[in-house]
Parts: sequence; structure tokens; C-alpha cells
Amino acid sequence: MTAKKPQDTMTTMSELILPNDTNTLGNLMGGRLMHWMDIAAAMAAMKHSNCPVVTASADNISFENPVRLGNVVTIEAKVTRAFSTSMEVYIKVHGEDLPTQFKYLSNEAYMTFVALDPHGKPRKVPELVPETADEIGRFEGALRRRQLRLILSGRMKADEATELKKLFFDDIIKK
Amino acid sequence: MTAKKPQDTMTTMSELILPNDTNTLGNLMGGRLMHWMDIAAAMAAMKHSNCPVVTASADNISFENPVRLGNVVTIEAKVTRAFSTSMEVYIKVHGEDLPTQFKYLSNEAYMTFVALDPHGKPRKVPELVPETADEIGRFEGALRRRQLRLILSGRMKADEATELKKLFFDDIIKK
Amino acid sequence: MTAKKPQDTMTTMSELILPNDTNTLGNLMGGRLMHWMDIAAAMAAMKHSNCPVVTASADNISFENPVRLGNVVTIEAKVTRAFSTSMEVYIKVHGEDLPTQFKYLSNEAYMTFVALDPHGKPRKVPELVPETADEIGRFEGALRRRQLRLILSGRMKADEATELKKLFFDDIIKK
Amino acid sequence: MTAKKPQDTMTTMSELILPNDTNTLGNLMGGRLMHWMDIAAAMAAMKHSNCPVVTASADNISFENPVRLGNVVTIEAKVTRAFSTSMEVYIKVHGEDLPTQFKYLSNEAYMTFVALDPHGKPRKVPELVPETADEIGRFEGALRRRQLRLILSGRMKADEATELKKLFFDDIIKK
Amino acid sequence: MTAKKPQDTMTTMSELILPNDTNTLGNLMGGRLMHWMDIAAAMAAMKHSNCPVVTASADNISFENPVRLGNVVTIEAKVTRAFSTSMEVYIKVHGEDLPTQFKYLSNEAYMTFVALDPHGKPRKVPELVPETADEIGRFEGALRRRQLRLILSGRMKADEATELKKLFFDDIIKK
Amino acid sequence: MTAKKPQDTMTTMSELILPNDTNTLGNLMGGRLMHWMDIAAAMAAMKHSNCPVVTASADNISFENPVRLGNVVTIEAKVTRAFSTSMEVYIKVHGEDLPTQFKYLSNEAYMTFVALDPHGKPRKVPELVPETADEIGRFEGALRRRQLRLILSGRMKADEATELKKLFFDDIIKK
Repeated sequence: MTAKKPQDTMTTMSELILPNDTNTLGNLMGGRLMHWMDIAAAMAAMKHSNCPVVTASADNISFENPVRLGNVVTIEAKVTRAFSTSMEVYIKVHGEDLPTQFKYLSNEAYMTFVALDPHGKPRKVPELVPETADEIGRFEGALRRRQLRLILSGRMKADEATELKKLFFDDIIKK
Repeated sequence: MTAKKPQDTMTTMSELILPNDTNTLGNLMGGRLMHWMDIAAAMAAMKHSNCPVVTASADNISFENPVRLGNVVTIEAKVTRAFSTSMEVYIKVHGEDLPTQFKYLSNEAYMTFVALDPHGKPRKVPELVPETADEIGRFEGALRRRQLRLILSGRMKADEATELKKLFFDDIIKK
Repeated sequence: MTAKKPQDTMTTMSELILPNDTNTLGNLMGGRLMHWMDIAAAMAAMKHSNCPVVTASADNISFENPVRLGNVVTIEAKVTRAFSTSMEVYIKVHGEDLPTQFKYLSNEAYMTFVALDPHGKPRKVPELVPETADEIGRFEGALRRRQLRLILSGRMKADEATELKKLFFDDIIKK
Repeated sequence: MTAKKPQDTMTTMSELILPNDTNTLGNLMGGRLMHWMDIAAAMAAMKHSNCPVVTASADNISFENPVRLGNVVTIEAKVTRAFSTSMEVYIKVHGEDLPTQFKYLSNEAYMTFVALDPHGKPRKVPELVPETADEIGRFEGALRRRQLRLILSGRMKADEATELKKLFFDDIIKK
Repeated sequence: MTAKKPQDTMTTMSELILPNDTNTLGNLMGGRLMHWMDIAAAMAAMKHSNCPVVTASADNISFENPVRLGNVVTIEAKVTRAFSTSMEVYIKVHGEDLPTQFKYLSNEAYMTFVALDPHGKPRKVPELVPETADEIGRFEGALRRRQLRLILSGRMKADEATELKKLFFDDIIKK
Repeated sequence: MTAKKPQDTMTTMSELILPNDTNTLGNLMGGRLMHWMDIAAAMAAMKHSNCPVVTASADNISFENPVRLGNVVTIEAKVTRAFSTSMEVYIKVHGEDLPTQFKYLSNEAYMTFVALDPHGKPRKVPELVPETADEIGRFEGALRRRQLRLILSGRMKADEATELKKLFFDDIIKK
């Protein structure tokens, strides 16, 4: 398996916000957006693994700005790091009001996917080699986010999260 | 505004997994499930606030067991705590294969919603008074989860998260 | 095959009324509601039979109160009686306007389903043993409704409907 | 308001059965079909009343033959009789397997609709004048079906249903 | 294979324009309409070929009149000519505003379909024998439209399009 | 109104082919694809005009290669030329089978859109200034395609199509 670059997995998806995507105040429902984010991210993971994938987790998502009926939502997804049989994908979502040419960040998120063989069992994925400074930063951060995921889902004790301790809770630990 | 009980906000939603909800291996796509979870949780939050709501955040979700085509998914949502203008909702998702009578946990999650007035501005919500031991536990944990959300979205420094420090990272801090 | 109780088959489904579910006056279209009622009732029948089912009939449905855009519809379905290879399901539908805390009955209905084996042929289903007074009442009424169904679909002569005669048309027959 | 003919209200709708319309055995789900029947019938009622309509009731529907994935369903709807502010619509549904040129009756049904003014209140509809023998037969039967609907929804006592007694339960009453 | 008549392939499809079918000004989106036109035309082609078909091309479509939210769209499709393994279908689309009884032409179009065997390879279709003057006219025009399609997709040189030259560009060539 | 560049209007949309998008042989239905192409192209036209748009026409589309269930379709749309109140958009569609890393051209097309003011009347759009050789070529070809559209919809006589004569039918006219 040849190693891949994040850019090889880049996926862009644009959707027009239609009436059924919104609540009674005309704001895009968070669940609809998560549905689109999951599809965009799965496509990025499939570009990396070249096989079917299944969503393993979605990290904490904070919806910063409501997206309005009639606006366009643009979702960009890119694999940040490959583990043995799983991949972390970074997703960035912008809303855009075309008449007023106003573009705004809706939210950012990380999702992880597991690659599957034809029997539905996890299978190995190629390595991912980051290139730009931003890609290298996200590649390194992937370890810490992975430890936080394991702690939050009860599969790792906070004490064992060496990577997390080093960086994320630096100021806590120093005391 | 009269205080409410978690039970007043209880919402149950069952969905049959149809072909378009699944990937090519016949597993429910994570994004479709998040879409349904968001709608169920929004209904719970509307039962509490009696007004339109918008999704503010979704906490880390870990998909434990894939849900299969033809299975039934049952989503239970209940408000755990009300803050000034927002509410945290706990969501529990089961998959069920009816022919074999096999019921399994798919995942659990927390989402938060903001109550809106007719102009789309945040508005006050009633207090939530937990009753059962489980409800009281989730009510108290809501503060820690809120601090983690603020840290993860960059709005609070880890150092200020007093509630979080006390419980979640107890073993880290002791050293 | 072990007998089951109505409560074992209880299914609850909540749906938020979105723009595409309504006509131009903002009322939920009857057909969309029947679609949801059928899915909820099919899930109840699958819980009883533990196998795929197909809709055999829907009894007369009268839509009492229109359900409005933005309201929540809650559908409760429960098997009332099992026949050799078919089951009758009782469905109760409420609409709810959450901002004004107004909950109203939309309609009630009965649907019947046939259990199928993997070749699509009818297969035996377990017995249903009613428990509460309400369940016993619906269990007994199922015979009369079944006769009315057979008459209305031309498979039984009105004259042969002994159960129906006894109760439903008591006042007609006495004269 | 000028009287109309049943033919003026004739509506034909064809749908191709796609994967999401079927259960796991590849049979069209009854609820999806009722959804389409309701839309076709509502269009027929709108052609008669020239205003928005809302479904008031659906009569007993018996699904004779399952419609298969990939088959075409053809729904024909025609108003049978106009009452003061409501209309009864007759619906006939055929399935068709195009490769084998096999066309079969799926089911027949009657639905009633109420015409609405812009405030959502019932409004008068024109008279319907049947032409063919079949149309005259359904026009006359509409009174009996209306009485059965009123009895089944608890708005009329069986004893008062003079039209129904005369024809439908003739053999019962004679005894 | 017995020859067929255009009337044997006649397909009528009516759709009610719902909110999600329209843009923010309440006009039916062209793409949604093309989706329905393709399904109606595919059904006509399947009635002719009695096997699965796939869309090969859609001719120039000009949307004359916008169709409004709440209006009904009626699509009529009929095969105009069969070639070896493909069929040309003529599609006529009307919009209708039922309250004002205003019916208007939305657009006309031609689409072509290829008949497929179970392995997805093109298969022979029966001959089509036109009957009415209108059907004969479209049958003859099919050759010229086919040449224009071949030219526009780069598979034929304009010079070789003898049929097209004769009729369509008569006035050009004469000079 | 400031002139824009084609690159300012670039829109990319990726969609995963799900079961309901395909016919019984697992090929993407042409109509579904045209629906997505129309939405992508409308977004490009809105980026240019900064106001709502409505589809005026779709040019001849030839579907070269069927897109398969589970494949990803990527649609790229870019405005090629602005006329007074309308815009021509070029659309290029690729299918991609991710497991085998096989990417193929599905089809190319041109669609035109009219910009609308809040009353639904056509409104002026900014000029488009092409930059690359490819953009300049499409910009110049837009005049010829416009004449062909006018001829095909019966609004221009073939004789008046001076641009078209010069280039497209060069070999015909010379004889």
C-alpha cells in the first residue's frame, strides 16, 4: 500500500439550504448538517482507503453561526491521519449568503472512520504523510484527540493519556 | 415559568432502517443517525422550553455497534439540565433486530440547544428539577460536560475548569 | 412459539412536521401521516411476529384535527390480536403544539399485517394474550372488525357475520 | 359555481418503485402507497373545488396484491360525489411488471376531502354530475359509504343510517 | 418481437409542487422537473422495450413558464421512434394552477434511452409503428434529431448529416 | 456592478450514489443526475449574480458512461458568459469508483439561468471576464450555443444565426 497525501483525499461538497432542511425559524437543523458532514468525510476516508468505511465517532461539534434558508453550505473534508484500520478526517463548514456576498464559518469538526473488507471486518489502510504546516499540525494533534476519544468513551483512563497530558492539560498539570 | 421534570421532556422515536439510510455494506450511515438524534433531542428541548430551539453543540459520539438494514433504531431523548437560555439533552440509541429479538446499544450522546424568541434571539427557559438517582447524576455531570465543551471550543482555559478538575481529571491532578 | 403481551409490541414514534409534509395552508397531508402510521404499526407487528410483515389492510380512518407545520406528531402502535398468520394493530395519533403546550387527538386507526417467511409466504405468528381491560376490549372487538373488513372487501356475506350482528348492529337487528 | 363532471377531475399518477419504497422482502410498503394515493386523490379534489383541500377520511383499504421493487404503480383518482363542503374520491391502483407485461389490481379505495378557504375554514364546492353508468353507481353508493363513515367514527347511530340499511344490510335486516 | 404503437407506451405522471421542490422565490427548480421527466420517459421506454432502460441523452430543454409552489405539474411521455437498441421519447409538461383553473405549457423535450439485458448490455427493442399524423411527424423528425445529437456530441460531422441538411438547414444551404 | 471572473463562480459538489438514486440494474438515473447538475449550476450562477436565479434552459446532454451504485459523482460548475440578465454555466461531471481508483467522465453540459429581482422579474447581472485559454474559448462559443438554443426553441430562424454559420456549419456552407 502506497502512502497518500492529505490533498489526495480532499472532498468538497456544496448544498443549497431548502425548506425541509430548516426549523420553523428558517435555520438549518444541526442534524441535517451532521448528515452532510458525515457523507463528505466518508468520501474523504474512502479516497484514502479505497474501500467502504463506517463512521466510528464524531468529536465535539460546536455550531457557531446558524445557516439560513436559501444560503449555501460548503463542506471541505480531508484525512488528517491514518491509524492501523481507521482514519481521522477534519471537516470545515462555511455558510454563504450569496446575495450579500457574506461568507461565515459555521463549524469545524473531526470524525473517524474504520475501513472495512467485503465481510465487514476492519482492514488495514495506507499511511498518510502530511505536507503543509497546517497538515502536520493536525497530524500531530490526532494522537491527543484520539486519547481524548478513548477517555470519553471509557476505553482509556485519564492517567494513561500521556500525549494529552503533555499538551492539552499542560497548565493543569504544572500546578 | 414553572420548573419541569426530566420525565416531562421524554421523547421516543423509532425508525426502520431503509436502503437509502445505509452504505454499500448495509450499515446505517452515522450521519443519518445523527440527523435523527438531533430531531429527537430538539423535540425534548422544545417540550422543556415550549419554543423553537436551535442546536448549539453535539458532544463526542462513539458508534459502538453498527445498525443493520432492516433493523429498527429506537432513540430516547430527555433534558438533563437547563441553563439560562440553553438545555443539555441526553440521547440513548438502541438498535434491534426483530427476527432474532436481539437488542443492542448503538450509542449515547449529549447535545445542547438554545431556546429562541420569535426574532431568533436566545430566551430564558424554565428550571429543570431532576428526580431519579440517574437524573440527578446526569444533572450534576452537566456542569463538567459544559466546561469540557467550553474548553474544546476554545472559550474557556483548562485552568478555569474547576468542576472538571475536581472529578474528571482527579487522577491526573493528584500526581 | 411463546405467547406475547400487547405491551411487548408497544411502539412509539415522534415526528416533527416539516414544510414538505404539509399542503399550502400548512396542514399535515393525510397521506404522509398514513405513511408514518404504517411504519409504526409494522414495527409493532414485527415485534410480535419476529419476522418481516406486509400491510394487508387499513381500516376506516377519520382525521379529526389537522396537524400543523412545526407541531410534533406522536404515534403509538400496539398489536391487539393475532390470528393465524396475521395481526391487527391499534394506532393512536396525537398532535402537539409545543409552544402553547396544546396536545390533541388527531386520529385512531386499525391496520392489519401478514407475517412472511423468507420466500414471501405467510407464516404462523404467536398468540397474543391481552392484560388490561382496554387490551381485552380491543382483543374482543378484533373479531367484529375482522368481519367488517371481510364484508367490505367482498369476501364475506353480511349474513354470515355473526359477531358483527351480535354487537355492532344490535339496534338494527332488534327491530 | 358551475357543476362539474367526474371526468373533469380525473388524475393519473405513475410511480416507479424504488428501493426506499420497499420492505426487506422487496414489497412496496402500504404506507408509501397510501401517501401517493392521498396526493393523487387530493389533486382530483382540487380539480373539482379549485381551492386547497385537506384529507377528512380514508375508507377501509384492502391490499390485494403486493407491488414489487422495480414495478410501476399507476394511480387513477376521480371525484364520485360532492357534498356541501366535501368531496368523495374513488382511487384505483394497478401494479405493473413491465418486463413480463403483467398488470394487476393492487387495491381500490375511497377518500374524502374538505375544501378550505384562505383562512382554513370549509367552503362550498360545486355540484358533481355523473355521466357514465359506473359514475352514477358510485355517485349513488356515496350516500351509503358516508353513513358507514359516520357510524364508524361514532357520529351517527346505526339505527339512523337509512340508506345503509336499505342496501348494504338488506339480508341482515330481513331476518 | 411484435411492433408496438406509440399509444401503448403513453405514460402520465402528476406531481404536486411542494416546498422542497422550489427555490426561495417559490418557483419549481428545473432540476427537480428534469428528474420527474426522466422517470416518466423511462417508464414509457420500459413499456415499449419490456426491460430495464438507461438514459442515453436529453435534448435541449427550454423552460418557458415557471411552475409555482402549490401548482400541479402533469408530464406526458410517449415513445416516438425505436432504433436498434434505443428509443426516443417525447415529453410534454404542463403546469396548472387549480384555484384559478389556469393551465400552461411549461416545456417540451426529447430524451433517448437504451434497453439493457440482465448483464447491462444493450439489447434489441421492438419496432414502433406511428398511427396519428402527429405521431408520424415525430417519427420522421426523430432521424434529424438523432443526427443533431450525434453532431453535438462529436460523433458525426455536420457534413454527413444528410437528413438534417435536407430539412433543418434548408434555408442556409440554398444560399 | 463589478465584473467577475469565471473562477469566482466555481462550484464543486460531490454526491455518493445511494440505492434510491439508481435503477434496478444499479445505474444512476439520468434524472437524478440532472437534478444535482441543476443545483450545482444554479449555485455558480448565484455566485455570479448575487441574487436568486431560475433555470432557463439545459442544452443537449449525452450520458457517456453510466455511474454505478456506491460510486461518487463530482460535479464542477462555472459561469462561462453573462448576457444582459442571464448566464450560461458549464458543467462537468465525473464518476469515481473509489475502491479501484477509477475516475471517468460521465458527461458535460451547458445550462442557462436568469437572475431575478425580489418580484421575480429579470434583473441585470455583472459582466464576466474570462482569463484562461479554456475560459476564453467557452466565452466565445457561448454566442454560437445561444443561437442554437434560439433556433431549437423556435425563436430565431436558422438563416439569422450568423455566429453559428461562421463556425459550426462551416463545412456545410462552403459547398
